[in-house]
Amino acid sequence: MAYFLMTIAYDGSNFHGWQKQPGKRTVQGDIEAALGLVLRAPIAIHGVSRTDAGVHAYGQRAGFAADTPIPAEKLRIALNNILTGRGSGSGARGDIRIREVVLAEEGFHARHDAVGKTYIYKMLTAGEPDIFLRNFFWQIDELPDAGVMRQAAEYLLGTHDFRSFRSAGGKGQEPTVKTIYSLRVCQGTYVTGVRDGRGEEDRNAMSGSPGVTTTVEIAGSGFLYNMVRIIVGTLAEVGAGRRGVESVPAALAALDRRAAGPTAPPQGLYLAKVHYDRNFAVALSEGI
Amino acid sequence: MAYFLMTIAYDGSNFHGWQKQPGKRTVQGDIEAALGLVLRAPIAIHGVSRTDAGVHAYGQRAGFAADTPIPAEKLRIALNNILTGRGSGSGARGDIRIREVVLAEEGFHARHDAVGKTYIYKMLTAGEPDIFLRNFFWQIDELPDAGVMRQAAEYLLGTHDFRSFRSAGGKGQEPTVKTIYSLRVCQGTYVTGVRDGRGEEDRNAMSGSPGVTTTVEIAGSGFLYNMVRIIVGTLAEVGAGRRGVESVPAALAALDRRAAGPTAPPQGLYLAKVHYDRNFAVALSEGI
Repeated sequence: MAYFLMTIAYDGSNFHGWQKQPGKRTVQGDIEAALGLVLRAPIAIHGVSRTDAGVHAYGQRAGFAADTPIPAEKLRIALNNILTGRGSGSGARGDIRIREVVLAEEGFHARHDAVGKTYIYKMLTAGEPDIFLRNFFWQIDELPDAGVMRQAAEYLLGTHDFRSFRSAGGKGQEPTVKTIYSLRVCQGTYVTGVRDGRGEEDRNAMSGSPGVTTTVEIAGSGFLYNMVRIIVGTLAEVGAGRRGVESVPAALAALDRRAAGPTAPPQGLYLAKVHYDRNFAVALSEGI
Repeated sequence: MAYFLMTIAYDGSNFHGWQKQPGKRTVQGDIEAALGLVLRAPIAIHGVSRTDAGVHAYGQRAGFAADTPIPAEKLRIALNNILTGRGSGSGARGDIRIREVVLAEEGFHARHDAVGKTYIYKMLTAGEPDIFLRNFFWQIDELPDAGVMRQAAEYLLGTHDFRSFRSAGGKGQEPTVKTIYSLRVCQGTYVTGVRDGRGEEDRNAMSGSPGVTTTVEIAGSGFLYNMVRIIVGTLAEVGAGRRGVESVPAALAALDRRAAGPTAPPQGLYLAKVHYDRNFAVALSEGI
């Protein structure tokens, strides 16, 4: 039996999340159905992160064991052909893309061997909500103060018991001590309707007033249920001046969900990367 | 009876186009249903452009006559409340936004009084297709040469018989002489996964290799069925070196659809603006 490791991007807008559920369209369900067609056998895949409905992935990983002579790159092409064809003509067409398939070493397991993950959360503050980005950003009216968000984020770095930042609905028995290696808050200008251009000369008939994106990038050893979205919801409240910087260490110390802020909505969240290299935290701290 | 004029943005991905059709989800159908709820009477709206399935709008206009004391801005808010609520939880939620409602002068008609339209068409060339943009750009593998596209575009400016740039399926009896006032081709850099940021400091775990966007902006008195998409399809072939610049005036002169290039796909097309001011062409030529 060979073990294959896939790198997967998906637009989570039209899925009921990653995990297979009877009668619902899920990312795992679609990929397993496509693999079944290619390999002519039922295949179970091991996804690293069970992303929720509306949450996206750029670098989800999933593995599967199969007894097949088909080379990894041929598998990738066959899977993408099937995944691109489904739901033809609707907006859902092509909302999963297998970015890479590689043959793994013997004994490797996609989920058990993962040592960390990086998530990105995107917020947008513009004069008018942008409907083309409604599934891809959390659009907030008031521009958050990135400076105080960064001060608050400092308290979350390192190893802590994060149970205040966990939603009910997660696995109750999972250890709540996690390590955050890196937490960056970036802001950038944004011009409605242009968004792909870079300068004044790119202004066009869809260019509105400039807006600002606020991006939170967070890398850690592991994350509790809704942990990234609760961290972002809490930092956003700090950025809006509705809670102080010191409320963040207080929330950590409280070991109580009610001490942290609200859960940010799913559509701003992207699983950016899964880490397998045990030195990834060192690389992150060196800004690689 | 008062006459109201709406400015409408929509993501066309999940619609069977603008025009109402029995049993299919259309933009006109959704807006008329929402208006019916607000005004408690069946209302027919006059849209300016019957955009196809998958085509977007930033500045579609539509008018309707109604006998109501409700102020225009209150109508706008009530409509958006209804339109945002539908399809709750799916990616379709909120894919129409009424940007403005104003009370028009007596005798005004949204479609009959329109004197021109501006469309924008977006292409993307990146090392890897971006699934988050699959409904919003035509993603092409080879970077087109914007210089030769601009040379070819010069031949389309002004008043011509554009029947070579009309798909079968349009109204056969419509006059085929139209005027194009402005046709701009812009290119801008693009970084996968960042796309909202502006500099190196915004690079993050989703930043891939840089790509390039090619945007065509076209303003004219009116457009035949699929005319913008056939113009873009033809210019893209020129930009790819598959046809020469001189093939464009030749296509115009041929008065035959087969002399022009292919029809570019719908998802890159945006109805950006509808013009009511008879001086709009002068303003465009002055770069306003």
